Amino acid sequence: MDFRSDNISGVSPQIMNEIISANRGASTSYSEDELTKDVEKRLEEIFGHELRFFPVLTGTAANALGLSVLTPPYGGVFCENHAHIYYDECAAPEFYTGGAKLVGLKGTAGRLDAKTVHDAVERAFQNGVHHAKPTTVSISQATEVGTVYRPDTIGEIAAVCRKFGLRLHMDGARFANALTFLDVAPAELTWKAGVDVLCLGATKNGALSAESVIVFDKALAGDLAYRIKRSGHLASKSRFISAQWSAYLQDELWLKNSQQANAAAARLSIGLSHQKQIKLMYPTEANEVFLQVEESVLRNLDSSGVKYSSWPGKEANVLRFVTSFNTSNSEIDECLAVFGETILSPVELEPSPD
Amino acid sequence: MDFRSDNISGVSPQIMNEIISANRGASTSYSEDELTKDVEKRLEEIFGHELRFFPVLTGTAANALGLSVLTPPYGGVFCENHAHIYYDECAAPEFYTGGAKLVGLKGTAGRLDAKTVHDAVERAFQNGVHHAKPTTVSISQATEVGTVYRPDTIGEIAAVCRKFGLRLHMDGARFANALTFLDVAPAELTWKAGVDVLCLGATKNGALSAESVIVFDKALAGDLAYRIKRSGHLASKSRFISAQWSAYLQDELWLKNSQQANAAAARLSIGLSHQKQIKLMYPTEANEVFLQVEESVLRNLDSSGVKYSSWPGKEANVLRFVTSFNTSNSEIDECLAVFGETILSPVELEPSPD
Amino acid sequence: MDFRSDNISGVSPQIMNEIISANRGASTSYSEDELTKDVEKRLEEIFGHELRFFPVLTGTAANALGLSVLTPPYGGVFCENHAHIYYDECAAPEFYTGGAKLVGLKGTAGRLDAKTVHDAVERAFQNGVHHAKPTTVSISQATEVGTVYRPDTIGEIAAVCRKFGLRLHMDGARFANALTFLDVAPAELTWKAGVDVLCLGATKNGALSAESVIVFDKALAGDLAYRIKRSGHLASKSRFISAQWSAYLQDELWLKNSQQANAAAARLSIGLSHQKQIKLMYPTEANEVFLQVEESVLRNLDSSGVKYSSWPGKEANVLRFVTSFNTSNSEIDECLAVFGETILSPVELEPSPD
Amino acid sequence: MDFRSDNISGVSPQIMNEIISANRGASTSYSEDELTKDVEKRLEEIFGHELRFFPVLTGTAANALGLSVLTPPYGGVFCENHAHIYYDECAAPEFYTGGAKLVGLKGTAGRLDAKTVHDAVERAFQNGVHHAKPTTVSISQATEVGTVYRPDTIGEIAAVCRKFGLRLHMDGARFANALTFLDVAPAELTWKAGVDVLCLGATKNGALSAESVIVFDKALAGDLAYRIKRSGHLASKSRFISAQWSAYLQDELWLKNSQQANAAAARLSIGLSHQKQIKLMYPTEANEVFLQVEESVLRNLDSSGVKYSSWPGKEANVLRFVTSFNTSNSEIDECLAVFGETILSPVELEPSPD
Repeated sequence: MDFRSDNISGVSPQIMNEIISANRGASTSYSEDELTKDVEKRLEEIFGHELRFFPVLTGTAANALGLSVLTPPYGGVFCENHAHIYYDECAAPEFYTGGAKLVGLKGTAGRLDAKTVHDAVERAFQNGVHHAKPTTVSISQATEVGTVYRPDTIGEIAAVCRKFGLRLHMDGARFANALTFLDVAPAELTWKAGVDVLCLGATKNGALSAESVIVFDKALAGDLAYRIKRSGHLASKSRFISAQWSAYLQDELWLKNSQQANAAAARLSIGLSHQKQIKLMYPTEANEVFLQVEESVLRNLDSSGVKYSSWPGKEANVLRFVTSFNTSNSEIDECLAVFGETILSPVELEPSPD
Repeated sequence: MDFRSDNISGVSPQIMNEIISANRGASTSYSEDELTKDVEKRLEEIFGHELRFFPVLTGTAANALGLSVLTPPYGGVFCENHAHIYYDECAAPEFYTGGAKLVGLKGTAGRLDAKTVHDAVERAFQNGVHHAKPTTVSISQATEVGTVYRPDTIGEIAAVCRKFGLRLHMDGARFANALTFLDVAPAELTWKAGVDVLCLGATKNGALSAESVIVFDKALAGDLAYRIKRSGHLASKSRFISAQWSAYLQDELWLKNSQQANAAAARLSIGLSHQKQIKLMYPTEANEVFLQVEESVLRNLDSSGVKYSSWPGKEANVLRFVTSFNTSNSEIDECLAVFGETILSPVELEPSPD
Repeated sequence: MDFRSDNISGVSPQIMNEIISANRGASTSYSEDELTKDVEKRLEEIFGHELRFFPVLTGTAANALGLSVLTPPYGGVFCENHAHIYYDECAAPEFYTGGAKLVGLKGTAGRLDAKTVHDAVERAFQNGVHHAKPTTVSISQATEVGTVYRPDTIGEIAAVCRKFGLRLHMDGARFANALTFLDVAPAELTWKAGVDVLCLGATKNGALSAESVIVFDKALAGDLAYRIKRSGHLASKSRFISAQWSAYLQDELWLKNSQQANAAAARLSIGLSHQKQIKLMYPTEANEVFLQVEESVLRNLDSSGVKYSSWPGKEANVLRFVTSFNTSNSEIDECLAVFGETILSPVELEPSPD
Repeated sequence: MDFRSDNISGVSPQIMNEIISANRGASTSYSEDELTKDVEKRLEEIFGHELRFFPVLTGTAANALGLSVLTPPYGGVFCENHAHIYYDECAAPEFYTGGAKLVGLKGTAGRLDAKTVHDAVERAFQNGVHHAKPTTVSISQATEVGTVYRPDTIGEIAAVCRKFGLRLHMDGARFANALTFLDVAPAELTWKAGVDVLCLGATKNGALSAESVIVFDKALAGDLAYRIKRSGHLASKSRFISAQWSAYLQDELWLKNSQQANAAAARLSIGLSHQKQIKLMYPTEANEVFLQVEESVLRNLDSSGVKYSSWPGKEANVLRFVTSFNTSNSEIDECLAVFGETILSPVELEPSPD
């Protein structure tokens, strides 16, 4: 049982099959193939809005490229302290924007709120040219700690952005997991709520290597293609990237995959909810479970061979368990058994309240 | 028949099979899997030297990352005017080095010579801090115009580098094609000749998306892993990249693939060699054929449906034909037939003299 | 009475005279004049250590250039939340380092302590290549809030740096004020305590435009001259910059100027110390006084024409008063009178305890 | 006699006096003083157009900042091979633009022509995202070799820019010398001819350290103030920079200074025009004289103590003589005497034909 991350999983069979199918004959390279255009059209249907779709190869690249469209080199990007762009991408946003300033803000359960953003932006503007110009807010959907922004909160943050002339970026590496949890239309979480750029990922949810930048205002997209080329994220044999997207969006595979991952996480979370030696750090809304455990639990886990991530931070013994599109219920039950739990059947898989 | 590029081809069956095989169970992500280490060991055997192997996703990324190890932001990179890093990578080297200066030099048939490099470097140093500090020379093996550097020439250029304290970078997107043409050991074209960093590609020669930076002096490699991460070229499901490398190097697939590509190019080149309306622009040494043709030839080609690249530049009607690992002899013969040629059998496939 | 900043003051007469004197005949440009070398020698005597002296034009440039010597593009710079490099230089460090990550830490009265640095660095390293590599710590002497690091604290922070392989940078825009306050040798606050690079300023203390990067380990300085040139901070008529330094260091002008500034600040601080409507935010150690005042005090000040800076932040009504080399005691007494204070004579100008 | 450069000269007395006068009382810092605004108004009168004036400290900074307004990180800047931005600024434009590509073109006597620019831009666009996007053309007025662009030529180059959507930058480090030579209104050489950004220098023509970016389209200027701050070119005691500009523009000092420099260069050039051992490399239009001399001349010069610059390049024994605002006619006559010339009186100081 390996719960270290959702990227330790392989590729969904449907996606692998599409890759294999793409391997026929010659195909125009560098994302100028027909398949890439088809995916763009499909996404326009799904999101109910015109958009530009730029496939890239990793989530770090997607985020940094997406931010570079919204943020000049002298700009400031406001995000939550735990944001992937802030803590886990080795200063990729600083690199891709040409040296913009990342400003980490304190959130609640991994989420920013409008007031925190408002006050930080206002204060930065008071400093004039001496502080990086506030230009961008970035939120993660789902967040780094497995929680999910409600459409209302996104809309309130977007209103702050509009008030001050900022743009709103969404890190959607686990967007499907958020969508599944909330059971709303993709539009509700993005352009309707005020998101300008969505970095939509597929890799963590069953693809091989397929991430993207989606720009809802076509004018904004402008020269992003040049930025992608010069960062080395324009794949020559691009058909194999588009093939993944094609399969991912077909027959709601993306939703089915995320449903399974979320359900497995919820099963784990609920199963452990009444253990006294275990503290659930955050509500389990997407596919991640954060636990603070007593030493005895830790020893037990380690001897059992269950794999997880130790979460660095000020608090000790915090563990992260991530489920995936191919995490089975029986795996979760085995894991719960290691924790000494017996599973009630059927488990209630209601999403935890906000 | 499509000769626009070697990246319009798909994936070698052996490589695709290895990708499929890699899709089993969980695997540590971010290039910390066992397979990646195995590939590094295999490359050490092939090159006969210790080295560090960094898989990345595109050739532009490999070159730019490789150069960033050798070149500070205030450095100068000397290369041939047609070099991919100079003309075809949308200023990726300037981006990745943090603003180094690319200096294009005039070569012969796409190749630099030691004297040209020497004089340019010497002149730049005369300007002190007012000119970017010469730190790096970059050569392409094979070159952009399908020619190949001999080991002696590389050694002479490397001697200039050592004299002035510069480092030598090799763009090896088509390294296998050069190797095949010269029929020498990989070491002869790289570390033995004085190359510090080799950007070795597999994508143009049958892989899906597999490029790499190979550093022969381990100390030099230093923190390249950080640079790769922040540029978004550290694939999470890295096993699928390493799987490609594994298959590529097994049973000499890389050489077999390049032999076929080179042979097809030579067949085309020789077949057209006595046509009066066609001028061969450069000796055909690797897998590219550059032709300058009369208008009538152009019209004939276009009506026949043969695809090629029009080569931009000062000279008109220059066409590029690129062959691939899966270009068959019969395709070449069909193409020659379009040109009005009948193939003598057997064609002499001797490499053209330097 | 204008206490908005020490940069609203003009130039010390001794410095202006030296500028005028330098305006004779022809002089080699671009810091290759004799005067620049003389200043370097003088600084070696003052600091009791060999060093490289690089004159530049502004403090922001000095800090960013100094950091760029110590910090690769993928590096992390740890500093206090209020640091000038963190909050007031419009992401200049991110720009000059090529996109390094600035990590703001919570300090006490503007100062970092060794444990805070230790824990933050250790946690960042736990994240491997996914977090910017910790490479640099930066401290400000005097700090942004007018406090001063003791040599012991600097040494403890430097020990953390050595443990983890980091370098220590000091923003010395108000170094003379710190020196004066502590009454120790310059060496005690710099290389002896473990500082690698000192950005020493003169502008705030009586110069026209004279800042510098001082590198104690000559090998480290390496190619800084190239960085300075390409950032546009190599003045062509450099003799006029060096002339300022020459006068600044002659006859202890730098210390005399800072003594007057510090004394004036202390006079103001002590004079207000027993007022109930005024809270002194930080100990007044250098030449800045931070007050939190009641509304009535604010109204009184504003109607009186006394100029100060409103300090942005979470707390309301925080005012900054900065004194300068040419702030007279009588100006302070006038200011105190506005506050309704009568000055006891003589005022005790003992430095406040740590 | 020292003809190495115009930056080996000191400061015009009128400018030094204004610096001294500025040293009174307190003044708002960071270019928000009244004097800076006055200079902007004065420049609007002189150029007959609304504009934004941004004082900076060096010419390299002015050029790089000016280019950064016109050029995205993925942009291409087309300039002449000898341009200061291309050869003498240590890749400052690459740095400030965040890695744009500088494309050097072959000119005639240091000047580009419209056709050369047209063809290069067209060819670059043919390469799509694989080549840096053409966004900017830069010309130097006067050029690096002392020649001057006529308004017609500038207009033709600007027409190419408009055709392709590029912007036109002018390096005006010696703008006054060009203006004097052509005897036209400043508007004719700038906005009327299609120049978007002029980097206007004063340092080489009598100032201490005063350069600037002038933006004719106010919308374009946008956030340049942020870029200036983060590059460290926002002087705190900015009144001393503005004071230089104020004196420079008063009573036509800038034109008087450049007239003297130009006249001295013409006197030297004409005086040597019939010597057989000396070849005048370029027409002497501004304040620079380039000579190719025989060895005997070189030896004679060196023993005489006359100082000049040896010009690096493919051709040997090329010398540069630069005259300045304070080069006297008698100095030129002394220099001519070293060359063995007797001066005819009066010398004809007609500008050389184009």
